[in-house]
Amino acid sequence: MIKASVIGATGYAGVELIKLLVLHPHVELVCLTSQSYAGQKIQDVYPHLRGFIDLELQIQDADKIGELSDVVFLALPHGHAVSTAEKICALGKKVIDLGADLRFRDAKVYEDWYHVKHENPLLSREAVYGLPEINRERIRKAHAVGNPGCYPTSALLALYPLVKNKLIDLNTIIIDSKSGVSGAGRSAVVTSLYGECAESLKAYNVGKHRHTPEIEQELSEISGNRVYVSFTPHLIPMIRGILTTVYASLNEKGKETDLSTLYHDHYQDEYFIRVHAKGVWPQTKWVTGTNFCDIGLDVDLRTNRVIVTAVIDNLVKGAAGQAVQNMNILFNLPEKTGLEQVPLYP
Amino acid sequence: MIKASVIGATGYAGVELIKLLVLHPHVELVCLTSQSYAGQKIQDVYPHLRGFIDLELQIQDADKIGELSDVVFLALPHGHAVSTAEKICALGKKVIDLGADLRFRDAKVYEDWYHVKHENPLLSREAVYGLPEINRERIRKAHAVGNPGCYPTSALLALYPLVKNKLIDLNTIIIDSKSGVSGAGRSAVVTSLYGECAESLKAYNVGKHRHTPEIEQELSEISGNRVYVSFTPHLIPMIRGILTTVYASLNEKGKETDLSTLYHDHYQDEYFIRVHAKGVWPQTKWVTGTNFCDIGLDVDLRTNRVIVTAVIDNLVKGAAGQAVQNMNILFNLPEKTGLEQVPLYP
Amino acid sequence: MIKASVIGATGYAGVELIKLLVLHPHVELVCLTSQSYAGQKIQDVYPHLRGFIDLELQIQDADKIGELSDVVFLALPHGHAVSTAEKICALGKKVIDLGADLRFRDAKVYEDWYHVKHENPLLSREAVYGLPEINRERIRKAHAVGNPGCYPTSALLALYPLVKNKLIDLNTIIIDSKSGVSGAGRSAVVTSLYGECAESLKAYNVGKHRHTPEIEQELSEISGNRVYVSFTPHLIPMIRGILTTVYASLNEKGKETDLSTLYHDHYQDEYFIRVHAKGVWPQTKWVTGTNFCDIGLDVDLRTNRVIVTAVIDNLVKGAAGQAVQNMNILFNLPEKTGLEQVPLYP
Amino acid sequence: MIKASVIGATGYAGVELIKLLVLHPHVELVCLTSQSYAGQKIQDVYPHLRGFIDLELQIQDADKIGELSDVVFLALPHGHAVSTAEKICALGKKVIDLGADLRFRDAKVYEDWYHVKHENPLLSREAVYGLPEINRERIRKAHAVGNPGCYPTSALLALYPLVKNKLIDLNTIIIDSKSGVSGAGRSAVVTSLYGECAESLKAYNVGKHRHTPEIEQELSEISGNRVYVSFTPHLIPMIRGILTTVYASLNEKGKETDLSTLYHDHYQDEYFIRVHAKGVWPQTKWVTGTNFCDIGLDVDLRTNRVIVTAVIDNLVKGAAGQAVQNMNILFNLPEKTGLEQVPLYP
Repeated sequence: MIKASVIGATGYAGVELIKLLVLHPHVELVCLTSQSYAGQKIQDVYPHLRGFIDLELQIQDADKIGELSDVVFLALPHGHAVSTAEKICALGKKVIDLGADLRFRDAKVYEDWYHVKHENPLLSREAVYGLPEINRERIRKAHAVGNPGCYPTSALLALYPLVKNKLIDLNTIIIDSKSGVSGAGRSAVVTSLYGECAESLKAYNVGKHRHTPEIEQELSEISGNRVYVSFTPHLIPMIRGILTTVYASLNEKGKETDLSTLYHDHYQDEYFIRVHAKGVWPQTKWVTGTNFCDIGLDVDLRTNRVIVTAVIDNLVKGAAGQAVQNMNILFNLPEKTGLEQVPLYP
Repeated sequence: MIKASVIGATGYAGVELIKLLVLHPHVELVCLTSQSYAGQKIQDVYPHLRGFIDLELQIQDADKIGELSDVVFLALPHGHAVSTAEKICALGKKVIDLGADLRFRDAKVYEDWYHVKHENPLLSREAVYGLPEINRERIRKAHAVGNPGCYPTSALLALYPLVKNKLIDLNTIIIDSKSGVSGAGRSAVVTSLYGECAESLKAYNVGKHRHTPEIEQELSEISGNRVYVSFTPHLIPMIRGILTTVYASLNEKGKETDLSTLYHDHYQDEYFIRVHAKGVWPQTKWVTGTNFCDIGLDVDLRTNRVIVTAVIDNLVKGAAGQAVQNMNILFNLPEKTGLEQVPLYP
Repeated sequence: MIKASVIGATGYAGVELIKLLVLHPHVELVCLTSQSYAGQKIQDVYPHLRGFIDLELQIQDADKIGELSDVVFLALPHGHAVSTAEKICALGKKVIDLGADLRFRDAKVYEDWYHVKHENPLLSREAVYGLPEINRERIRKAHAVGNPGCYPTSALLALYPLVKNKLIDLNTIIIDSKSGVSGAGRSAVVTSLYGECAESLKAYNVGKHRHTPEIEQELSEISGNRVYVSFTPHLIPMIRGILTTVYASLNEKGKETDLSTLYHDHYQDEYFIRVHAKGVWPQTKWVTGTNFCDIGLDVDLRTNRVIVTAVIDNLVKGAAGQAVQNMNILFNLPEKTGLEQVPLYP
Repeated sequence: MIKASVIGATGYAGVELIKLLVLHPHVELVCLTSQSYAGQKIQDVYPHLRGFIDLELQIQDADKIGELSDVVFLALPHGHAVSTAEKICALGKKVIDLGADLRFRDAKVYEDWYHVKHENPLLSREAVYGLPEINRERIRKAHAVGNPGCYPTSALLALYPLVKNKLIDLNTIIIDSKSGVSGAGRSAVVTSLYGECAESLKAYNVGKHRHTPEIEQELSEISGNRVYVSFTPHLIPMIRGILTTVYASLNEKGKETDLSTLYHDHYQDEYFIRVHAKGVWPQTKWVTGTNFCDIGLDVDLRTNRVIVTAVIDNLVKGAAGQAVQNMNILFNLPEKTGLEQVPLYP
């Protein structure tokens, strides 16, 4: 059994991790920490977990947790993961950070967008960006994994076949994303209130969202060129789910390619990627509660643009599920272990 | 492996059955039928099922399905199950009807409330009302199970300890239930449209809902007295979930009893019933996607009334999950086989 | 023009007051206060108000506001209204308190339920409980009006004809209320987050909600007997709206009365009360954004209980709209002035 | 008083028209028609209208209605308006069609996208596209007005200042729109059910939506060039509201222009257009229930793209409200007559 711990267990990503780990056949949960609820039992804070777990929430003590655990999941606000990750790694244990601190090979990029000094640029360089469908082999050998952001997961999986196969004009990428409210976490802020979010819709952080450099880092790496994208996130009145709509102009090679076939072929061995037939546009409900990413695409012949939509559950493939997928890779388990879930529909 | 079939596979109850059965370790799905979609593949009608199943929907042929199957689930509108159930039973196979046709020991009661002639009162009498926490032993020996309605499941589990232990005045039972919209099924009717249901709330079928006699049948059986209840259903702008609030006046014995302890003791061996501490009132989200029924209760000392709330997922414990629980009982499997699911939260 | 001010203008009740007052043909808004946003313009805090108002939010100064205004609306948390109300009254101006501080003739009841000492029991005794359909004549002569709570408004309007005409057993009243989330205000608390409220449902404060004594005070006054009720509030995933379901056993006189006709006759001159035909059960959406209270009722002959449902918009008839209705009475305007609004449907 | 009639009064657009017209100070509603509900009273079909109207729904008889009315609103499915519009016009009365039949100057474009033969291309050519902020003067002299589609209203108001002032590369326009479910009307179809729409999100009709040519017609007219756009609609789990996000690459002139000032200046005399400060992104809730269009915009300096978001209530500025605005223009009333409404917030 893999001994696993979760630091920051009472946020939405943390509680989704618990959901997945308590039923994972090869995992034993050994320690959960929480700044706000330390001393209480997790099943009292989250009564829906009753019957599945009986653990008291601890104060965070990285060394002790590193000793106890084979793998530690960090579900902390950005800027809080590095020192903990260092200690876990120093003990020879694996660390999977669900925040942003280990996502950037170049810590300078992180500092520019997050306005925080990075405490360990070397660790950031060595950590692997944990999107298995793109970086699987590097993840396998990693000690520290920077689990991708929810928006980037959907955008990168939508764009990967196009960029890798050099089918689009890289200067024309527009990413219009729509996310459910759970993406904002469980913080008690006015903008996340039911009364403010229900029956409404807005764009936010236009041109400034911190997931932008993450997308650009990976696209640049895949293409071998410095890529800039326009990325606009929107807040949608639903709990879970992201739908990302990607637009790009096809180059000559792109115009000649059967993109639907290309996508099917590209992702045919990926259990978690389901490419739908031309003209079928996935809805977020098709993946609710699962680690799937469903993709639809078509070419707008009038404008020579390809349009791709990708849907994920932001808390699963966009956070906790992908983290468990990464854990499975790190420990040489079949990737879908503990992640075979039928979507909740309706 | 148990060979299972679903007749009426494309309604919400049917598709929830499929969700549970494709991952059930002892079940093989052999046949799905659909009047509307026969000839199509189930995964094309419901793309969220892609990767879990590859079956073509059939026209209903009870004899053929009975031959192929060890157990047949019927998820049909009321009035359509009896002749099929007869044929399945005649072949010595088990049948679990998710509709109302086999719920009433006295077919006359069915006829009075459903305004349809019952085609086989004898079968109705022999069928067992499939609420395991009340009728487990009878279910074990049954050939045909009448799976309970969603509202009655919540109401009966809320009231069972009180009625069985004779703690309330049976003339004072008021059942105020609130259900999500999926309870109305997937029929294309104006009253189930998003625009009509969202941001709204109503009572309906007040004093006339067909789940009333089902509740009264079981309470009468438990108490040994003819019980009448006031039952009012309400439609709530959410997809899944029922919360039932029960009110009753305590008799002398009831006033002297520690009801919280009574409920805990009563349900302590029931995996699917979670009784919460005094003052903790469960919300439907605590059971979403699972077969749990969570219960909260307290006494209003000013009025000498006990108030109990019970929450279920109407499509799971209120329909498909309970049907699978009944199947597990019929086939001597542990009751929770295939039903160990952590609620989807948030 | 009536010079009106709102103290506590940036909560949901305050902003609804502004909505109504900016279009009221006989009102000029002279002062708005806010503890959190003082110094900002109201239309910057609430951009949806742009074009209707251009006022800077002030720090609260009761004397100054009293000087400027003919009427002052208080939309403050309970326990903060009394000293301000005193000052306004001392200046000979009218005060309408949307909180609980002036609702109780007996300040002791307030203290028992709110666990706060009442600062001016005399003022509490002199203030009038501002439910116009019951207390219109007293309101007309009042200096201070205690605007009713949202739940009590719906419950009292549902019960008034029954209690006034002595048609029910007063010991059997059960009030099961369901409210949208805006009833909890705009405070940034976890329990009001979208992720916690959407797709869920719960009872809360069972047997303990502070609106209980308010309902009992009025029912006792109407009936001439000390009345106790069971009152259970539930939180519903919608923004606006309350539906209250009332149950009571009919006495002999009640059994002989045509209740539908009685309700129609009773409320025939009330513009804001719409009694629907027997078997028509109003939904909250029928009154969204308006000051209406729609009522449906029927008798359950099997149990001899009358069941009444009443729906209101909790922020209008349950708060700001009723406050404006009270203002209209105080200033001898037609009651519907500024309140003629067609519900938002769908 | 203007005598007004509504043909197709029981759809969502029709009922919103009634909402606006019953309170319009210069309108008398003389006739409502409905295919489904003829013979019933409108207030029985829509009980929320009780107290505001008392009219029986009629079978459609264009000549008779034309005789009775000064203006006739058509709220019919496309393909049903032309013959009626002809008759109304022949009688010298005004007609405002909320469907698509009169929106295209070139009936051939209509036929290509709607796959229906246009019955009167001449009428189509003479009718005026009723977007007042663009075509006000032409509307003033029109007999027949083609009221714009909901998506085009938002997209055109977002793009108008850019295109008119030649600030963008016309080949780079991408329009990503998000609409609430009421846009699909009140038809009883599975895809509009609460269970299908709530907690989900999807793109639909990608590259094929019939509002595309409407947008292109107007942009081509404004710019003097044939413009093609990529337009992608998405279905959002809310009742009302459209948010349209527009992307375009700035040309040299565009890069040098202060776009925020330009938009403010451009729309400064338009009562219904509210341009927000740079960095303020409007949400749909800011306009719910009103005829406003709120606009936010900014330049993404990294990619030289301008991003504009526009929000409207699809049933008001996107349908019935704009129709009333057009009526006001046709009858020389101030444009905001009957349309001064404070948004419903929250």
